[in-house]
Amino acid sequence: MKAFQVRAPFEFGLAQVEVPQVARNEVKVDVAYAGICGSDLHIIHGQNAFVRFPRVTGHEFSGVVREVGEGVENIKVGGRVCIDPVISCGTCYPCRINRPNVCTQLQVIGVHRDGGFSEQVSVPASNVHRLPDSMSLSHAALVEPYSIALNVLDRMQPHPGDSLLIYGAGVIGLTLVQMARALGLTDITVTDVIDERLETARALGATRTLNGKDVDVEATMRELTEGQGVPLIVDAACIPALMPQMVRLASPAGRIGLLGFNATPTDLVQLEMIKKELTLVGSRLNNRKFPRVIELIASGKLQVQEMISHRVGFDDMPEAIALIENHPEQTRKVLVQLNTAHS
Amino acid sequence: MKAFQVRAPFEFGLAQVEVPQVARNEVKVDVAYAGICGSDLHIIHGQNAFVRFPRVTGHEFSGVVREVGEGVENIKVGGRVCIDPVISCGTCYPCRINRPNVCTQLQVIGVHRDGGFSEQVSVPASNVHRLPDSMSLSHAALVEPYSIALNVLDRMQPHPGDSLLIYGAGVIGLTLVQMARALGLTDITVTDVIDERLETARALGATRTLNGKDVDVEATMRELTEGQGVPLIVDAACIPALMPQMVRLASPAGRIGLLGFNATPTDLVQLEMIKKELTLVGSRLNNRKFPRVIELIASGKLQVQEMISHRVGFDDMPEAIALIENHPEQTRKVLVQLNTAHS
Repeated sequence: MKAFQVRAPFEFGLAQVEVPQVARNEVKVDVAYAGICGSDLHIIHGQNAFVRFPRVTGHEFSGVVREVGEGVENIKVGGRVCIDPVISCGTCYPCRINRPNVCTQLQVIGVHRDGGFSEQVSVPASNVHRLPDSMSLSHAALVEPYSIALNVLDRMQPHPGDSLLIYGAGVIGLTLVQMARALGLTDITVTDVIDERLETARALGATRTLNGKDVDVEATMRELTEGQGVPLIVDAACIPALMPQMVRLASPAGRIGLLGFNATPTDLVQLEMIKKELTLVGSRLNNRKFPRVIELIASGKLQVQEMISHRVGFDDMPEAIALIENHPEQTRKVLVQLNTAHS
Repeated sequence: MKAFQVRAPFEFGLAQVEVPQVARNEVKVDVAYAGICGSDLHIIHGQNAFVRFPRVTGHEFSGVVREVGEGVENIKVGGRVCIDPVISCGTCYPCRINRPNVCTQLQVIGVHRDGGFSEQVSVPASNVHRLPDSMSLSHAALVEPYSIALNVLDRMQPHPGDSLLIYGAGVIGLTLVQMARALGLTDITVTDVIDERLETARALGATRTLNGKDVDVEATMRELTEGQGVPLIVDAACIPALMPQMVRLASPAGRIGLLGFNATPTDLVQLEMIKKELTLVGSRLNNRKFPRVIELIASGKLQVQEMISHRVGFDDMPEAIALIENHPEQTRKVLVQLNTAHS
């Protein structure tokens, strides 16, 4: 069977691999669509310390159930599904306090074990979510990236009427804009340095955009908020150097969400944290957000179609990766179609 | 009337000041006891940017109602009370989302307006809390410092069975130990560099103490937690340089509480924040914690008596301040008795 395999940093491509077995309580899926994520590129670049090579990547995918293992109930062969990539143990400290996405035995499909860029993949039945009839398999491949946005916003506990500042209009920033609107927020500012991305952010619901190359973001936000600052700030640019500005711009009782896997230390001034009683939250993967995202997509509250900039065949995946790397301004979500029988 | 007044940085002492008026919706209190706090020393040292001089300090105090202003109901002359120093506007963003302790118009009694080191003080009626008959006026002066401990622990959302690491065994660290036990936590480690303080921490309920001069705190905590880290960490030492260690020691889904008004930037590694999905919370003053603290004291769950190391007369207050500054190892809470008629 064909799969996209990273054999070592910078060594990757389509390969013939063995068809996976189906263990007890697992389900085998014919993958229909899988999205390419920035973190797939990090794996290719050898920047993900959790990966052991060789690895079939891909953690954003949908498909059709091909086989169910022993012990699996409620999932039928032929069912249309998408897969939550977060596998947790259920017994460690984070799992016991309902934080399975930072399970001490965490396994992420496509990172710690083989993932969705593969004609077939076996996954735990508990990670499989059935799709409503109205939802296409291509849209279902985007449940995972939207779950990232919902996870960080839930962690930040938005209040009705809160204004939101998003740093970064890449895929995560754009899903954040839509998710924030779906949650009822109406005052959303996005900053980036690429005009094309900011245009998309406006098209997807951002109230205003600021190109950091043209305007002083901090001064502009101070003026816009009449010096009061912003209650909700998300770093979806993943640039640690922005932290001091985010802390300065946060309003009293503000919440700052962090998404960037960056090891460079950044300056944090505790005085600001305490004076304004700020909350800084890291957000990783998603904490059982699939059912709510599926519901939001099914009810038309997320503009999924607009997020898909390219659809490519499996054989064209290496070229698609090059496109994302060389022309980030041209791409949003690039979907790989794996089994043309399911489209 | 006599009051302890800071006229300018390093210029302070007892002074004759005018008796305060009682405005509408205010109450005038004969102060019985007032505690000296580290932040009173910061004001004396000119390290509190919010203060305008001259200022009568003191934000931890109890007393007996002497006069009630127009519009005040439910508070009677002669009533025994303690006073929440946090005055908020009720209409700004933090107030609207129930975070009045970071009100944009915040007034702290003893900081922004004259406080409790005074024979009489006028305060808003809504800041006055009646004492149960069983509670002494001297113990009531400690409601405020305990409210600091409850505020940060509430912000950290402890789960039953969570272990807690407290940096610093000063007054805040010691109230934290007791408050954590009162909330049901049973595994409490305290680290400091003064043995006398650590002894007190053990006497007040710490499970274990680590003197940072004798042991490697990080290595010891790693071993104790079998590498899993600590779910709850509070910085009550207010040393920014400790932040990287706190972040490394936090368990997945860990919560770190910050209390220190320190402008020195500290290194924060976002990778750790996200990998473990940590939450960093600033904590300032207290968010309407007085009723719960009063209940906990009344029910005997806090060892208030053991927190009081010295009681001094009003005229001895300058000497008491010198004692706290020069011999922190000998002092816990130093209480000033202002009106001997109410003791």
